[in-house]
Amino acid sequence: MLGEHSSKQYDNELEAIRSKVLLMGGIVETQFLDAMTCFRIGNPERADRVIREDDVVNQLEVSLDDACSHLIVRRQPTANDLRTIMATIKIITDLERVGDEATKIARVAKNLHKRGNAVVNHYEMVRGVANTATDMLHDALDAFARNDGQQALALIAQDAIIDHEFRSIMRNLITFMMEDPRTISAALDTLWVAKAIERIGDHAKNIAEYVIYVVDGKDIRHTRSAAPAISEELPE
Amino acid sequence: MLGEHSSKQYDNELEAIRSKVLLMGGIVETQFLDAMTCFRIGNPERADRVIREDDVVNQLEVSLDDACSHLIVRRQPTANDLRTIMATIKIITDLERVGDEATKIARVAKNLHKRGNAVVNHYEMVRGVANTATDMLHDALDAFARNDGQQALALIAQDAIIDHEFRSIMRNLITFMMEDPRTISAALDTLWVAKAIERIGDHAKNIAEYVIYVVDGKDIRHTRSAAPAISEELPE
Repeated sequence: MLGEHSSKQYDNELEAIRSKVLLMGGIVETQFLDAMTCFRIGNPERADRVIREDDVVNQLEVSLDDACSHLIVRRQPTANDLRTIMATIKIITDLERVGDEATKIARVAKNLHKRGNAVVNHYEMVRGVANTATDMLHDALDAFARNDGQQALALIAQDAIIDHEFRSIMRNLITFMMEDPRTISAALDTLWVAKAIERIGDHAKNIAEYVIYVVDGKDIRHTRSAAPAISEELPE
Repeated sequence: MLGEHSSKQYDNELEAIRSKVLLMGGIVETQFLDAMTCFRIGNPERADRVIREDDVVNQLEVSLDDACSHLIVRRQPTANDLRTIMATIKIITDLERVGDEATKIARVAKNLHKRGNAVVNHYEMVRGVANTATDMLHDALDAFARNDGQQALALIAQDAIIDHEFRSIMRNLITFMMEDPRTISAALDTLWVAKAIERIGDHAKNIAEYVIYVVDGKDIRHTRSAAPAISEELPE
Protein backbone atom coordinates (compact mmCIF):
# COMPACT_ATOMS: atom_id res chain seq x y z
CA MET A 1 0.00 0.00 0.00
CA LEU A 2 1.19 3.48 -0.80
CA GLY A 3 1.50 5.93 2.04
CA GLU A 4 0.06 9.43 1.85
CA HIS A 5 3.46 10.88 1.12
CA SER A 6 4.09 8.51 -1.75
CA SER A 7 0.60 9.02 -3.14
CA LYS A 8 1.12 12.76 -3.14
CA GLN A 9 4.37 12.34 -5.01
CA TYR A 10 2.54 10.19 -7.52
CA ASP A 11 -0.05 12.96 -8.01
CA ASN A 12 2.69 15.54 -8.50
CA GLU A 13 4.52 13.43 -11.05
CA LEU A 14 1.32 12.65 -12.93
CA GLU A 15 0.42 16.34 -12.97
CA ALA A 16 3.86 17.16 -14.39
CA ILE A 17 3.24 14.64 -17.18
CA ARG A 18 -0.22 16.03 -17.88
CA SER A 19 1.19 19.57 -18.14
CA LYS A 20 3.78 18.40 -20.61
CA VAL A 21 1.10 16.61 -22.68
CA LEU A 22 -0.85 19.88 -22.80
CA LEU A 23 2.30 21.72 -23.84
CA MET A 24 2.74 19.17 -26.63
CA GLY A 25 -0.94 19.63 -27.54
CA GLY A 26 -0.44 23.41 -27.76
CA ILE A 27 2.52 22.97 -30.08
CA VAL A 28 0.71 20.67 -32.51
CA GLU A 29 -2.35 22.96 -32.47
CA THR A 30 -0.12 25.87 -33.49
CA GLN A 31 1.58 23.69 -36.10
CA PHE A 32 -1.79 22.89 -37.64
CA LEU A 33 -2.96 26.53 -37.66
CA ASP A 34 0.35 27.74 -39.11
CA ALA A 35 0.33 25.03 -41.76
CA MET A 36 -3.16 26.06 -42.86
CA THR A 37 -2.04 29.71 -43.04
CA CYS A 38 0.83 28.62 -45.29
CA PHE A 39 -1.61 26.75 -47.50
CA ARG A 40 -3.77 29.89 -47.74
CA ILE A 41 -1.19 32.60 -48.35
CA GLY A 42 2.17 30.90 -48.83
CA ASN A 43 4.98 31.95 -46.48
CA PRO A 44 7.82 29.46 -46.80
CA GLU A 45 9.52 30.64 -43.59
CA ARG A 46 6.48 29.74 -41.56
CA ALA A 47 6.22 26.40 -43.36
CA ASP A 48 9.85 25.71 -42.43
CA ARG A 49 9.08 26.55 -38.82
CA VAL A 50 6.20 24.05 -38.78
CA ILE A 51 8.52 21.41 -40.21
CA ARG A 52 11.23 22.20 -37.66
CA GLU A 53 8.75 22.07 -34.78
CA ASP A 54 8.12 18.44 -35.68
CA ASP A 55 11.47 17.54 -34.10
CA VAL A 56 10.38 19.16 -30.85
CA VAL A 57 7.12 17.21 -30.92
CA ASN A 58 8.95 13.94 -31.64
CA GLN A 59 11.30 14.49 -28.73
CA LEU A 60 8.36 15.26 -26.46
CA GLU A 61 6.76 11.96 -27.48
CA VAL A 62 9.86 9.98 -26.57
CA SER A 63 10.46 11.78 -23.27
CA LEU A 64 6.80 11.58 -22.23
CA ASP A 65 6.64 7.85 -22.94
CA ASP A 66 9.72 7.51 -20.81
CA ALA A 67 8.23 9.58 -17.98
CA CYS A 68 5.10 7.39 -18.02
CA SER A 69 7.21 4.22 -17.77
CA HIS A 70 9.18 5.63 -14.87
CA LEU A 71 6.02 6.61 -13.07
CA ILE A 72 4.62 3.08 -13.39
CA VAL A 73 7.80 1.40 -12.17
CA ARG A 74 8.44 3.71 -9.22
CA ARG A 75 4.89 4.33 -8.02
CA GLN A 76 3.22 1.02 -8.89
CA PRO A 77 -0.15 2.64 -9.55
CA THR A 78 -3.50 1.07 -8.74
CA ALA A 79 -5.80 -0.06 -11.54
CA ASN A 80 -7.55 3.31 -11.50
CA ASP A 81 -4.39 5.37 -11.66
CA LEU A 82 -2.94 3.11 -14.29
CA ARG A 83 -5.94 3.78 -16.51
CA THR A 84 -4.98 7.46 -16.60
CA ILE A 85 -1.38 6.65 -17.47
CA MET A 86 -2.36 4.18 -20.19
CA ALA A 87 -4.72 6.73 -21.76
CA THR A 88 -1.98 9.35 -21.57
CA ILE A 89 0.44 7.05 -23.39
CA LYS A 90 -2.11 6.61 -26.18
CA ILE A 91 -2.89 10.34 -26.34
CA ILE A 92 0.82 11.11 -26.75
CA THR A 93 0.92 8.87 -29.86
CA ASP A 94 -2.09 10.66 -31.35
CA LEU A 95 -0.62 14.10 -30.70
CA GLU A 96 2.62 13.10 -32.37
CA ARG A 97 0.64 11.99 -35.44
CA VAL A 98 -1.22 15.33 -35.50
CA GLY A 99 2.21 16.97 -35.68
CA ASP A 100 3.09 14.67 -38.61
CA GLU A 101 -0.07 15.62 -40.48
CA ALA A 102 0.50 19.35 -39.88
CA THR A 103 4.04 18.91 -41.20
CA LYS A 104 2.67 17.25 -44.33
CA ILE A 105 0.32 20.19 -44.91
CA ALA A 106 3.24 22.62 -44.49
CA ARG A 107 5.29 20.67 -47.05
CA VAL A 108 2.46 20.65 -49.59
CA ALA A 109 1.86 24.38 -49.03
CA LYS A 110 5.53 25.15 -49.50
CA ASN A 111 5.81 23.20 -52.76
CA LEU A 112 2.53 24.51 -54.07
CA HIS A 113 3.46 28.15 -53.58
CA LYS A 114 6.98 27.53 -54.87
CA ARG A 115 5.45 26.26 -58.11
CA GLY A 116 3.37 29.44 -58.24
CA ASN A 117 0.18 27.45 -58.00
CA ALA A 118 -1.44 29.91 -55.61
CA VAL A 119 -3.87 30.98 -58.33
CA VAL A 120 -5.58 27.61 -58.35
CA ASN A 121 -5.32 27.34 -54.61
CA HIS A 122 -8.30 25.47 -53.27
CA TYR A 123 -8.05 26.82 -49.77
CA GLU A 124 -11.69 27.87 -49.77
CA MET A 125 -12.67 24.29 -50.46
CA VAL A 126 -11.02 22.95 -47.32
CA ARG A 127 -11.63 25.98 -45.08
CA GLY A 128 -14.79 24.49 -43.52
CA VAL A 129 -13.33 21.08 -42.78
CA ALA A 130 -10.16 22.69 -41.41
CA ASN A 131 -12.21 24.78 -39.00
CA THR A 132 -14.11 21.72 -37.81
CA ALA A 133 -10.87 19.80 -37.23
CA THR A 134 -9.31 22.77 -35.43
CA ASP A 135 -12.29 22.96 -33.07
CA MET A 136 -12.23 19.20 -32.49
CA LEU A 137 -8.55 19.20 -31.62
CA HIS A 138 -8.97 22.17 -29.32
CA ASP A 139 -11.99 20.62 -27.58
CA ALA A 140 -10.19 17.30 -27.20
CA LEU A 141 -7.24 18.96 -25.44
CA ASP A 142 -9.62 21.02 -23.32
CA ALA A 143 -11.57 17.89 -22.34
CA PHE A 144 -8.27 16.21 -21.43
CA ALA A 145 -7.15 19.22 -19.35
CA ARG A 146 -10.43 19.36 -17.45
CA ASN A 147 -11.21 15.62 -17.42
CA ASP A 148 -14.50 16.48 -19.06
CA GLY A 149 -16.23 13.36 -20.39
CA GLN A 150 -19.26 15.31 -21.61
CA GLN A 151 -17.19 17.58 -23.82
CA ALA A 152 -15.25 14.59 -25.10
CA LEU A 153 -18.46 12.79 -26.03
CA ALA A 154 -19.86 15.86 -27.78
CA LEU A 155 -16.88 16.29 -30.06
CA ILE A 156 -16.77 12.65 -31.17
CA ALA A 157 -19.97 13.22 -33.15
CA GLN A 158 -18.18 15.87 -35.21
CA ASP A 159 -15.96 13.26 -36.80
CA ALA A 160 -18.86 12.18 -39.00
CA ILE A 161 -19.20 15.81 -40.20
CA ILE A 162 -15.55 15.84 -41.21
CA ASP A 163 -15.88 12.58 -43.13
CA HIS A 164 -18.95 13.93 -44.89
CA GLU A 165 -17.17 17.17 -45.82
CA PHE A 166 -14.15 15.21 -47.00
CA ARG A 167 -16.25 13.19 -49.44
CA SER A 168 -17.82 16.35 -50.77
CA ILE A 169 -14.34 17.91 -51.31
CA MET A 170 -13.34 14.77 -53.20
CA ARG A 171 -16.32 15.08 -55.54
CA ASN A 172 -15.61 18.76 -56.17
CA LEU A 173 -11.97 18.09 -56.91
CA ILE A 174 -12.82 15.33 -59.37
CA THR A 175 -15.15 17.74 -61.20
CA PHE A 176 -12.39 20.38 -61.35
CA MET A 177 -9.86 17.88 -62.64
CA MET A 178 -12.20 16.57 -65.33
CA GLU A 179 -13.07 20.05 -66.54
CA ASP A 180 -9.46 21.14 -66.77
CA PRO A 181 -6.79 18.44 -66.60
CA ARG A 182 -4.12 21.13 -66.17
CA THR A 183 -5.39 21.57 -62.62
CA ILE A 184 -4.77 17.93 -61.68
CA SER A 185 -1.50 18.52 -59.80
CA ALA A 186 -2.94 21.38 -57.76
CA ALA A 187 -6.11 19.39 -57.08
CA LEU A 188 -4.05 16.49 -55.74
CA ASP A 189 -2.17 18.89 -53.46
CA THR A 190 -5.51 19.99 -52.06
CA LEU A 191 -6.55 16.37 -51.75
CA TRP A 192 -3.52 15.58 -49.57
CA VAL A 193 -4.22 18.60 -47.43
CA ALA A 194 -7.87 17.53 -47.03
CA LYS A 195 -6.72 14.00 -46.16
CA ALA A 196 -4.33 15.32 -43.51
CA ILE A 197 -7.11 17.44 -42.01
CA GLU A 198 -9.42 14.42 -41.93
CA ARG A 199 -6.71 12.46 -40.10
CA ILE A 200 -6.31 15.24 -37.55
CA GLY A 201 -10.05 14.93 -36.90
CA ASP A 202 -9.56 11.18 -36.38
CA HIS A 203 -6.79 11.78 -33.87
CA ALA A 204 -8.92 14.34 -31.99
CA LYS A 205 -11.67 11.71 -31.83
CA ASN A 206 -9.20 9.14 -30.49
CA ILE A 207 -8.06 11.57 -27.78
CA ALA A 208 -11.67 12.19 -26.80
CA GLU A 209 -12.24 8.43 -26.50
CA TYR A 210 -9.27 8.11 -24.16
CA VAL A 211 -10.55 11.01 -22.03
CA ILE A 212 -13.85 9.13 -21.67
CA TYR A 213 -11.91 5.99 -20.76
CA VAL A 214 -10.19 7.92 -17.94
CA VAL A 215 -13.32 9.69 -16.69
CA ASP A 216 -15.94 6.95 -17.01
CA GLY A 217 -13.72 3.88 -17.00
CA LYS A 218 -15.40 2.77 -20.23
CA ASP A 219 -13.49 1.78 -23.32
CA ILE A 220 -15.79 3.09 -26.07
CA ARG A 221 -13.40 2.54 -28.94
CA HIS A 222 -14.99 0.68 -31.85
CA THR A 223 -18.47 0.93 -30.37
CA ARG A 224 -21.36 2.26 -32.41
CA SER A 225 -21.79 5.48 -30.49
CA ALA A 226 -18.13 6.33 -30.73
CA ALA A 227 -17.63 5.53 -34.37
CA PRO A 228 -20.71 5.83 -36.56
CA ALA A 229 -20.58 3.53 -39.58
CA ILE A 230 -20.26 6.54 -41.87
CA SER A 231 -16.84 7.40 -40.55
CA GLU A 232 -15.51 4.00 -41.53
CA GLU A 233 -16.38 4.43 -45.18
CA LEU A 234 -13.74 5.43 -47.60
CA PRO A 235 -14.51 8.64 -49.45
CA GLU A 236 -15.24 8.21 -53.11
CA MET B 1 10.64 -8.35 -4.89
CA LEU B 2 8.77 -10.97 -6.82
CA GLY B 3 9.25 -14.58 -5.80
CA GLU B 4 10.13 -17.26 -8.32
CA HIS B 5 6.56 -18.48 -8.46
CA SER B 6 5.18 -15.02 -9.13
CA SER B 7 7.85 -14.30 -11.72
CA LYS B 8 6.98 -17.51 -13.55
CA GLN B 9 3.33 -16.52 -13.57
CA TYR B 10 4.36 -13.18 -14.99
CA ASP B 11 6.26 -14.92 -17.79
CA ASN B 12 3.28 -17.13 -18.54
CA GLU B 13 0.89 -14.21 -18.69
CA LEU B 14 3.24 -12.19 -20.86
CA GLU B 15 3.65 -15.16 -23.18
CA ALA B 16 -0.14 -15.46 -23.47
CA ILE B 17 -0.33 -11.79 -24.45
CA ARG B 18 2.46 -12.19 -26.99
CA SER B 19 0.69 -15.18 -28.58
CA LYS B 20 -2.48 -13.16 -28.90
CA VAL B 21 -0.58 -10.26 -30.48
CA LEU B 22 0.83 -12.72 -33.03
CA LEU B 23 -2.67 -14.04 -33.66
CA MET B 24 -3.82 -10.45 -34.26
CA GLY B 25 -0.82 -9.96 -36.55
CA GLY B 26 -1.76 -13.06 -38.54
CA ILE B 27 -5.31 -11.79 -38.99
CA VAL B 28 -4.28 -8.36 -40.29
CA GLU B 29 -1.70 -9.94 -42.59
CA THR B 30 -4.45 -12.09 -44.11
CA GLN B 31 -6.75 -9.06 -44.31
CA PHE B 32 -4.11 -7.18 -46.28
CA LEU B 33 -3.44 -10.09 -48.67
CA ASP B 34 -7.16 -10.70 -49.20
CA ALA B 35 -7.82 -7.01 -49.77
CA MET B 36 -5.13 -6.90 -52.46
CA THR B 37 -6.62 -9.98 -54.13
CA CYS B 38 -9.98 -8.19 -54.20
CA PHE B 39 -8.34 -5.17 -55.80
CA ARG B 40 -6.78 -7.42 -58.42
CA ILE B 41 -9.69 -9.66 -59.40
CA GLY B 42 -12.78 -8.35 -57.63
CA ASN B 43 -14.61 -10.82 -55.38
CA PRO B 44 -17.09 -8.88 -53.24
CA GLU B 45 -17.61 -11.79 -50.80
CA ARG B 46 -13.96 -11.77 -49.90
CA ALA B 47 -14.01 -7.97 -49.56
CA ASP B 48 -16.93 -8.30 -47.16
CA ARG B 49 -14.99 -10.85 -45.14
CA VAL B 50 -12.03 -8.46 -44.84
CA ILE B 51 -14.41 -5.74 -43.66
CA ARG B 52 -16.06 -8.08 -41.14
CA GLU B 53 -12.70 -9.22 -39.79
CA ASP B 54 -12.05 -5.63 -38.77
CA ASP B 55 -14.47 -6.12 -35.85
CA VAL B 56 -12.43 -9.07 -34.64
CA VAL B 57 -9.23 -7.03 -34.85
CA ASN B 58 -10.82 -4.12 -32.99
CA GLN B 59 -12.00 -6.40 -30.20
CA LEU B 60 -8.53 -7.93 -29.97
CA GLU B 61 -7.06 -4.44 -29.57
CA VAL B 62 -9.37 -3.62 -26.67
CA SER B 63 -8.91 -6.95 -24.90
CA LEU B 64 -5.12 -6.93 -25.35
CA ASP B 65 -4.83 -3.40 -23.95
CA ASP B 66 -6.86 -4.61 -21.03
CA ALA B 67 -4.66 -7.68 -20.53
CA CYS B 68 -1.55 -5.49 -20.53
CA SER B 69 -3.05 -3.20 -17.87
CA HIS B 70 -3.96 -6.15 -15.71
CA LEU B 71 -0.49 -7.58 -16.02
CA ILE B 72 1.06 -4.29 -14.89
CA VAL B 73 -1.24 -3.91 -11.90
CA ARG B 74 -0.99 -7.48 -10.66
CA ARG B 75 2.66 -8.26 -11.37
CA GLN B 76 4.24 -4.82 -10.88
CA PRO B 77 6.93 -5.45 -13.48
CA THR B 78 10.49 -4.19 -13.24
CA ALA B 79 11.72 -1.48 -15.62
CA ASN B 80 12.99 -4.13 -18.01
CA ASP B 81 9.78 -6.13 -18.09
CA LEU B 82 7.71 -2.98 -18.36
CA ARG B 83 9.60 -2.02 -21.50
CA THR B 84 8.28 -5.16 -23.18
CA ILE B 85 4.72 -4.42 -22.10
CA MET B 86 4.90 -0.78 -23.21
CA ALA B 87 6.22 -1.82 -26.62
CA THR B 88 3.48 -4.43 -26.88
CA ILE B 89 0.81 -1.80 -26.16
CA LYS B 90 2.19 0.35 -28.97
CA ILE B 91 2.45 -2.59 -31.37
CA ILE B 92 -1.21 -3.44 -30.74
CA THR B 93 -2.21 0.08 -31.87
CA ASP B 94 -0.17 -0.27 -35.05
CA LEU B 95 -1.67 -3.67 -35.86
CA GLU B 96 -5.17 -2.29 -35.42
CA ARG B 97 -4.35 0.50 -37.88
CA VAL B 98 -3.02 -2.06 -40.40
CA GLY B 99 -6.44 -3.72 -40.16
CA ASP B 100 -8.08 -0.34 -40.83
CA GLU B 101 -5.96 0.23 -43.92
CA ALA B 102 -6.67 -3.28 -45.25
CA THR B 103 -10.37 -2.60 -44.72
CA LYS B 104 -10.08 0.63 -46.72
CA ILE B 105 -8.45 -1.26 -49.59
CA ALA B 106 -11.25 -3.84 -49.50
CA ARG B 107 -13.89 -1.09 -49.66
CA VAL B 108 -12.20 0.62 -52.61
CA ALA B 109 -11.85 -2.74 -54.40
CA LYS B 110 -15.50 -3.55 -53.83
CA ASN B 111 -16.74 -0.20 -55.17
CA LEU B 112 -14.34 -0.24 -58.06
CA HIS B 113 -15.42 -3.65 -59.30
CA LYS B 114 -19.07 -2.85 -58.66
CA ARG B 115 -18.71 0.12 -61.01
CA GLY B 116 -17.18 -2.25 -63.55
CA ASN B 117 -13.93 -0.35 -63.47
CA ALA B 118 -11.83 -3.48 -63.55
CA VAL B 119 -10.74 -2.64 -67.08
CA VAL B 120 -8.80 0.37 -65.92
CA ASN B 121 -7.61 -1.45 -62.85
CA HIS B 122 -4.16 -0.27 -61.95
CA TYR B 123 -3.24 -3.31 -59.92
CA GLU B 124 0.00 -3.77 -61.81
CA MET B 125 1.04 -0.29 -60.78
CA VAL B 126 0.84 -1.04 -57.08
CA ARG B 127 1.90 -4.68 -57.20
CA GLY B 128 5.54 -3.92 -56.38
CA VAL B 129 4.84 -1.61 -53.45
CA ALA B 130 2.24 -4.06 -52.11
CA ASN B 131 4.80 -6.88 -52.14
CA THR B 132 7.33 -4.73 -50.30
CA ALA B 133 4.76 -3.79 -47.64
CA THR B 134 3.65 -7.43 -47.29
CA ASP B 135 7.26 -8.50 -46.69
CA MET B 136 7.83 -5.67 -44.22
CA LEU B 137 4.75 -6.56 -42.20
CA HIS B 138 5.66 -10.23 -42.19
CA ASP B 139 9.25 -9.51 -41.16
CA ALA B 140 8.10 -7.14 -38.42
CA LEU B 141 5.85 -9.81 -36.90
CA ASP B 142 8.59 -12.39 -37.26
CA ALA B 143 11.09 -10.08 -35.54
CA PHE B 144 8.57 -9.54 -32.75
CA ALA B 145 7.97 -13.29 -32.37
CA ARG B 146 11.68 -14.06 -32.19
CA ASN B 147 12.82 -10.86 -30.46
CA ASP B 148 15.17 -10.32 -33.37
CA GLY B 149 16.61 -6.81 -33.34
CA GLN B 150 18.75 -7.44 -36.43
CA GLN B 151 15.78 -8.42 -38.56
CA ALA B 152 13.85 -5.42 -37.23
CA LEU B 153 16.66 -3.06 -38.15
CA ALA B 154 16.98 -4.54 -41.64
CA LEU B 155 13.33 -4.01 -42.52
CA ILE B 156 13.24 -0.39 -41.37
CA ALA B 157 15.40 0.56 -44.35
CA GLN B 158 12.69 -0.77 -46.68
CA ASP B 159 10.33 2.02 -45.69
CA ALA B 160 12.33 4.43 -47.85
CA ILE B 161 11.80 2.08 -50.82
CA ILE B 162 8.05 2.17 -50.26
CA ASP B 163 8.00 5.97 -50.10
CA HIS B 164 10.03 6.13 -53.29
CA GLU B 165 7.69 3.71 -55.07
CA PHE B 166 4.69 5.64 -53.83
CA ARG B 167 5.95 8.87 -55.38
CA SER B 168 6.58 7.11 -58.66
CA ILE B 169 3.00 5.71 -58.62
CA MET B 170 1.72 9.24 -58.01
CA ARG B 171 3.58 10.57 -61.06
CA ASN B 172 2.28 7.75 -63.25
CA LEU B 173 -1.28 8.28 -62.12
CA ILE B 174 -1.08 12.02 -62.83
CA THR B 175 0.12 11.23 -66.36
CA PHE B 176 -2.79 8.81 -66.88
CA MET B 177 -5.31 11.30 -65.60
CA MET B 178 -4.00 14.10 -67.80
CA GLU B 179 -4.02 11.93 -70.90
CA ASP B 180 -7.56 10.75 -70.33
CA PRO B 181 -9.67 12.62 -67.77
CA ARG B 182 -12.26 9.83 -67.90
CA THR B 183 -9.83 7.69 -65.90
CA ILE B 184 -9.67 10.17 -63.01
CA SER B 185 -12.05 8.31 -60.71
CA ALA B 186 -10.30 4.98 -61.21
CA ALA B 187 -6.90 6.64 -60.79
CA LEU B 188 -7.98 8.12 -57.46
CA ASP B 189 -9.15 4.68 -56.32
CA THR B 190 -5.67 3.38 -57.07
CA LEU B 191 -4.20 6.37 -55.27
CA TRP B 192 -6.11 5.51 -52.09
CA VAL B 193 -4.99 1.92 -52.32
CA ALA B 194 -1.37 3.01 -52.78
CA LYS B 195 -1.72 5.38 -49.82
CA ALA B 196 -3.10 2.59 -47.62
CA ILE B 197 -0.21 0.32 -48.64
CA GLU B 198 2.29 3.06 -47.81
CA ARG B 199 0.67 3.42 -44.38
CA ILE B 200 0.93 -0.31 -43.77
CA GLY B 201 4.66 0.01 -44.49
CA ASP B 202 4.82 2.82 -41.91
CA HIS B 203 3.13 0.66 -39.30
CA ALA B 204 5.49 -2.24 -40.02
CA LYS B 205 8.38 0.17 -39.49
CA ASN B 206 6.88 1.33 -36.20
CA ILE B 207 6.54 -2.28 -35.03
CA ALA B 208 10.19 -2.91 -35.94
CA GLU B 209 11.23 0.14 -33.90
CA TYR B 210 9.37 -1.19 -30.86
CA VAL B 211 11.03 -4.60 -31.25
CA ILE B 212 14.42 -2.86 -31.18
CA TYR B 213 13.29 -0.94 -28.09
CA VAL B 214 12.55 -4.26 -26.36
CA VAL B 215 15.69 -6.06 -27.49
CA ASP B 216 18.30 -3.30 -27.24
CA GLY B 217 16.59 -0.96 -24.79
CA LYS B 218 17.09 1.86 -27.27
CA ASP B 219 14.29 4.14 -28.40
CA ILE B 220 15.27 4.77 -32.01
CA ARG B 221 12.07 6.48 -33.05
CA HIS B 222 12.65 9.77 -34.84
CA THR B 223 16.38 9.16 -35.13
CA ARG B 224 18.15 9.48 -38.46
CA SER B 225 18.95 5.81 -38.86
CA ALA B 226 15.40 4.76 -38.15
CA ALA B 227 13.66 7.33 -40.28
CA PRO B 228 15.63 8.58 -43.25
CA ALA B 229 14.66 12.13 -44.24
CA ILE B 230 13.20 10.80 -47.50
CA SER B 231 10.41 8.98 -45.73
CA GLU B 232 9.19 12.19 -44.17
CA GLU B 233 8.59 13.90 -47.48
CA LEU B 234 5.15 14.10 -48.88
CA PRO B 235 4.76 12.52 -52.27
CA GLU B 236 4.23 14.99 -55.07
